[in-house]
Amino acid sequence: MSNCIVAQSGGPTSVINSSVVGLLNANKKLKAFDKVYGGLNGIEGILNKNIIDLSSISDEEIDHFRFTPSSGLGSCRYKLSDIDSCSQEYENLINILKEYDITSFFYVGGNDSMDTIAKLSKYARINKIDIKFIGIPKTIDNDLMFTDHTPGFGSAAKFIGTSVLETYLDASVYVNNGIFILETMGRDTGWLAASSCLAKLDNKSVVDFIYLPESAFDKDQFLRDVKQRFEEQNKVYIVVSEGIRDKNGKFISELQCSSQDKFGHAQLGGVGNYLKNLIIESGITSRVKSLELGILQRCAMHCASYTDLTEAFKVGELALIHAAEGETGKMVAINRDSNEPYTVSYSLVDSDKVANHVSYFPSEWINEAGNFVTEEAYSYFKPLIKDLPNLALKGNLPKYKVFNQ
Amino acid sequence: MSNCIVAQSGGPTSVINSSVVGLLNANKKLKAFDKVYGGLNGIEGILNKNIIDLSSISDEEIDHFRFTPSSGLGSCRYKLSDIDSCSQEYENLINILKEYDITSFFYVGGNDSMDTIAKLSKYARINKIDIKFIGIPKTIDNDLMFTDHTPGFGSAAKFIGTSVLETYLDASVYVNNGIFILETMGRDTGWLAASSCLAKLDNKSVVDFIYLPESAFDKDQFLRDVKQRFEEQNKVYIVVSEGIRDKNGKFISELQCSSQDKFGHAQLGGVGNYLKNLIIESGITSRVKSLELGILQRCAMHCASYTDLTEAFKVGELALIHAAEGETGKMVAINRDSNEPYTVSYSLVDSDKVANHVSYFPSEWINEAGNFVTEEAYSYFKPLIKDLPNLALKGNLPKYKVFNQ
Repeated sequence: MSNCIVAQSGGPTSVINSSVVGLLNANKKLKAFDKVYGGLNGIEGILNKNIIDLSSISDEEIDHFRFTPSSGLGSCRYKLSDIDSCSQEYENLINILKEYDITSFFYVGGNDSMDTIAKLSKYARINKIDIKFIGIPKTIDNDLMFTDHTPGFGSAAKFIGTSVLETYLDASVYVNNGIFILETMGRDTGWLAASSCLAKLDNKSVVDFIYLPESAFDKDQFLRDVKQRFEEQNKVYIVVSEGIRDKNGKFISELQCSSQDKFGHAQLGGVGNYLKNLIIESGITSRVKSLELGILQRCAMHCASYTDLTEAFKVGELALIHAAEGETGKMVAINRDSNEPYTVSYSLVDSDKVANHVSYFPSEWINEAGNFVTEEAYSYFKPLIKDLPNLALKGNLPKYKVFNQ
Repeated sequence: MSNCIVAQSGGPTSVINSSVVGLLNANKKLKAFDKVYGGLNGIEGILNKNIIDLSSISDEEIDHFRFTPSSGLGSCRYKLSDIDSCSQEYENLINILKEYDITSFFYVGGNDSMDTIAKLSKYARINKIDIKFIGIPKTIDNDLMFTDHTPGFGSAAKFIGTSVLETYLDASVYVNNGIFILETMGRDTGWLAASSCLAKLDNKSVVDFIYLPESAFDKDQFLRDVKQRFEEQNKVYIVVSEGIRDKNGKFISELQCSSQDKFGHAQLGGVGNYLKNLIIESGITSRVKSLELGILQRCAMHCASYTDLTEAFKVGELALIHAAEGETGKMVAINRDSNEPYTVSYSLVDSDKVANHVSYFPSEWINEAGNFVTEEAYSYFKPLIKDLPNLALKGNLPKYKVFNQ
């Protein structure tokens, strides 16, 4: 008997379940494992033996699960201690895996999950435990190193581009239009905010200014830019990443909210409202609206990218195939071979190289003024948002299926 | 030479351009008017002769315009004075219409627009001016009297239902889930918030509580409800209309923002955040998120209801047909003949009956506790959100076309 287990961790995406189904699909063809288990709520659930048998679920349910947004196996933000400081935790986990005859462990997640994969594979190697640990990339933030992009990002970018185009039209209907500010996620990196450059009308970007964490935010320059553009065209559309900082690296939104999450990351939000108040106080205009996309941008399966869904499926398949071949301590990565036509290939990278590192939005794709992105960025984003899934319906809304309820 | 003009007014919807294209289409078949003009930015633009010839625009552009959200002819919030107090304004408008040989005037809008239609038709009748004035209903709020529902509402409801389902999944992934609050538009009526009952998973509504302006909001009862549900299931999903009031009719959000728009309506927003703070202060949990859908709910063409788009087209067609038959001072209304199968018929109602009245969410569709809606409401909403449009694409995003840029 040789089984495997897959679990999900960190913030959800629209395509994270697609990776699980890709993995199930690969095992159907390969028959590498007798059973594919699903760990509910990541490591946290597995430590509580919250485990289900995914291979016994009907094809129909799995197909609905594949096109369901958010972590359908549940998630966690559980961080493993360092191996030296708490080996009991590792031992408990390994014992549970052994109890279920699990020889391969798959974790779908971002930097922190790759840290988990790196630690577990190291622990297994040191203790001569024959269990493989493979990471499957996932994050809307697109901030993982050694992969061209991450599954989940394309769908978020598609929702952002679509929503920017649509809200721009809504915010432009009057003779006296105002200033519109859209706040995207992106604590450390500006990939999500930058993807708003996708929104074009008559071949021209509808966004006037894009502010990213990678470019130091200068309040006075911001107000000068906005004032001038508002005088020129009587409307301004601004996209801002929640994580913008000043030249000293201090979060612009820090004064609004200073709580921290478990990993010590500052919990942000509200920077759009901060900019709104800045503009109003400066006297440019009082007609300013600010909108936060919030979690909508990471769960909008109805507006997901089919390309993204396909790639998420593929990295799941490859994870299983590589584990069956004996690989461990690796993450499946996507390499872009060509932009037009868009083609990718896949490879493996060491999960400890990926863990705890951040892939920033390239400075050469930011304009000199630090308030917009280049055409190279547009060309990078465009193929990632291609096509839509054809969703099954129930009651005239998408039919979704999860296993963590 | 006999021409007509169509213009749009008030807040945009996803399907308001569809009504204009329906009208153009009817004239193509009927050839009732030599030219169909478009007034840019409603009455305000027409008074400035901001007028384009819609009948000279290519079929291809019109087809993209049809599937473009928001008022593609621009909008205004211009309110005509009473006939007695300022007949100069009426005279100016009539002179411009005569200059363009316009014999029929169509206004796509809500209550205030029907007020305009009522006033103009009355002025024309008194002064023996042979120009017809017909109203075409439009509002996401679904608050017009004498029509089963309004074009624009179905698409907003579809976006709300879809987003509720998707954000519910996102907000439920952890072992320790929190409380999620979604704020919809709806200043006077709760139709939009109530439509969140469409979101079901495994035949069960995912929303725990829905708070509407039609049901007096009691802070203490709210906290008791939320506390109990949170203890039962470790997560609560709440939908709240921006316009909820206490038993004295005072807006709950009034302390947050007290500005007023031109029509004397209080400008609301932020009630979701208010409830969030209430919950946190009460000590139920600190894990509370609040999200405002804002203008996303009225411009999300990518998630529009095809049924809604079709009906919007139809009321535009019928407006032109009825004007050509000599009707004036009327609005085209939709009557629901059957729920399953869903069938509707159309009729005319006096615009002065519609003007300045409000269709409230029926009290018999609100549960006894005042915190949810009945299955009758679900059956009413469900057919209105059927099917999606197949949008033309450009750069992997929807291709939109407007005339007010």
